[in-house]
Amino acid sequence: MTEVRYGIIGIGNMGAGHARSLIEGKIKGAKLTAVCDGMPAKRDWAREQLAGVAVYENAEQMLESGLVDAVIVATPHYDHPQEAIRAFAKGVHVLIEKPAGVYAKQVREMNEAASVAAKEGLKFGIVYNQRTNPLYRKLRDLIAAGELGEIRRTNWIITNWYRSQAYYDSGSWRATWSGEGGGVLINQCPHQLDLWQWTIGMMPTRIRAFCHFGKHRSIEVEDDVTAYAEYENGATGVFITTTGEAPGTNRFEVAGTRGKIVIENDEMTFWRLREPEPDFNARNTESFATPECWKVDIPIHGTSSGHPGIIQNFADAILHGTPLIAPGEEGIHGLSISNAMHLSTWTDGWVDLPFDEALHEAELNKRIEASSVRKAETAGKPADLTGTY
Amino acid sequence: MTEVRYGIIGIGNMGAGHARSLIEGKIKGAKLTAVCDGMPAKRDWAREQLAGVAVYENAEQMLESGLVDAVIVATPHYDHPQEAIRAFAKGVHVLIEKPAGVYAKQVREMNEAASVAAKEGLKFGIVYNQRTNPLYRKLRDLIAAGELGEIRRTNWIITNWYRSQAYYDSGSWRATWSGEGGGVLINQCPHQLDLWQWTIGMMPTRIRAFCHFGKHRSIEVEDDVTAYAEYENGATGVFITTTGEAPGTNRFEVAGTRGKIVIENDEMTFWRLREPEPDFNARNTESFATPECWKVDIPIHGTSSGHPGIIQNFADAILHGTPLIAPGEEGIHGLSISNAMHLSTWTDGWVDLPFDEALHEAELNKRIEASSVRKAETAGKPADLTGTY
Repeated sequence: MTEVRYGIIGIGNMGAGHARSLIEGKIKGAKLTAVCDGMPAKRDWAREQLAGVAVYENAEQMLESGLVDAVIVATPHYDHPQEAIRAFAKGVHVLIEKPAGVYAKQVREMNEAASVAAKEGLKFGIVYNQRTNPLYRKLRDLIAAGELGEIRRTNWIITNWYRSQAYYDSGSWRATWSGEGGGVLINQCPHQLDLWQWTIGMMPTRIRAFCHFGKHRSIEVEDDVTAYAEYENGATGVFITTTGEAPGTNRFEVAGTRGKIVIENDEMTFWRLREPEPDFNARNTESFATPECWKVDIPIHGTSSGHPGIIQNFADAILHGTPLIAPGEEGIHGLSISNAMHLSTWTDGWVDLPFDEALHEAELNKRIEASSVRKAETAGKPADLTGTY
Repeated sequence: MTEVRYGIIGIGNMGAGHARSLIEGKIKGAKLTAVCDGMPAKRDWAREQLAGVAVYENAEQMLESGLVDAVIVATPHYDHPQEAIRAFAKGVHVLIEKPAGVYAKQVREMNEAASVAAKEGLKFGIVYNQRTNPLYRKLRDLIAAGELGEIRRTNWIITNWYRSQAYYDSGSWRATWSGEGGGVLINQCPHQLDLWQWTIGMMPTRIRAFCHFGKHRSIEVEDDVTAYAEYENGATGVFITTTGEAPGTNRFEVAGTRGKIVIENDEMTFWRLREPEPDFNARNTESFATPECWKVDIPIHGTSSGHPGIIQNFADAILHGTPLIAPGEEGIHGLSISNAMHLSTWTDGWVDLPFDEALHEAELNKRIEASSVRKAETAGKPADLTGTY
């Protein structure tokens, strides 16, 4: 293969963006050959805008066409796993949009299918484009190399996801248990929930979370979350998010035995201890002494390559065996944290990780059943973007 | 009365500092007339350093002498309430060091005695000298005046309390249940726990806290705390502290319906919304619109007057009826939060405020009884500052 023929499943906001990147030739060694969408209006758009690209009503037809080597799954969150599993079964590479799915159990099934597909050489990726951000790449690099020592504490305040009621009213599927399966954790925060564990290289071992549902807006899912996490090495972490705050904050702090790194306002600051804190503590004899600390300017090179960067990397992986920036199997990590935060709130208690995925699914289904927003009313309807609130 | 005759109960580190301020004439309308301390070495120090000041073995003798109009209580934390109650009974004004005490029940008894004493015109203050910091005074002023709107979220990361093992080894009473009744919450954080509620004018209604005991150091009390709080108006808060981190952070963020204020690095930044967020939300019709936000420079005047400022204010209150910066009765607020954080950890669950003070006292006593550090070994011994770790 010298060129990857991409198909896109679902050409809503995200899918349409990926389609544009491909037809504008931004992805080397790749072209867009087909798209599919269940909504006639979307297919009309595709026929008008995507010259030379085959348009199908559903993924089965597109996969049967033999026109695609790889698909990008850009459907509603719930459908990502089933679309991926179907594509793998047809021998097609799969790049899924985030989140990997809505509940870990379905994502685990997708990962199992990907594991089988991998034996046939099929690639599996996820559009975690924030992993191309040089700040977070540098943070991961520094931590992996031991420059921050052992991690002791993390704190991410990510509250600059302001969404008004008009946003929520712009699509009847938005912020519903049946349509999205969650709120700020599922829709806005998948990138941060991925980076929270990807940068430090550790998953929490247990979580106690406090989600508030429809606190700031007239919605049924969470729009305000504070979560506390503990890690196997004794480290602790806090993750705070909301869509109800303006101007909000995006500040990620990581403290280790070798100092502290803060990423805020698109800048990294590294406070570096001259010697590891435990070494200082072991030799120090003065009551009020503190370790010598240097404020260090770390060079950050490059820019985020964004969504096109992930699609390029996926094509390169297929064509040249380039390592994936975001292997699809890793989507379960951030989603598991998100699920555990829901479950902790619903049970008003600790959730150990790995958690009881069947219990989580059952609790989620209870909320879908109890929802005042019926699935029948929302399924398959186009998003209304007029914002009539 | 034209001059307040101060006596100091306990002339350890804090008491000796207050004594110096008084004999150096830093406090107008006040003089130091007497001190008392149970330890001979401290009394020897006083006789050498404090010319013309009467030195007593205990507070009873000092109070009987008739030489003092007001006392500053600078004993170990546990003894603050009993010393205050005794002084009130002798018709003497009382200024206590922080924390008000170790457990809310004893502090409530002190407050009741102060309430009776107030009818005789006796003043009651607490050395919350951080309330003289112009940054926190300005924050309180802005919030009280409604400039931040309704409070929605608070976040205080106060982890720059680095203490090495040498510090903890410098006094056998340090960081023990019997000697101090707690760790970083009781010894290092009383100021922040006071400011956390004083600046925003709200106490939490419930707390879920995660204290870690002896995590970073060989001690029996907490040296690492993450706490989550909820307030009556629906606001949430997080308070994080540890003595095990270097260089640590001191960052207090308060978000309201009118914007956000951050105090960090001795600076205040105010992000001010042009209109209140709820008003924007009510009229907005665009899906991704956000309220206009201004970054505002707020003038901060003056400097912290510190401990001398509080002693001066207390003298002024006695002489001229000047309002107290820190009324003693308010010491129970920060201490209650601290107690609730302990109790939440001990019971591994929510603690509603006001909390069960008898339960808290019983749980504390269990830990004193179970302690490997016997009270008999520590009581009355001078602090060993040689740091032999």
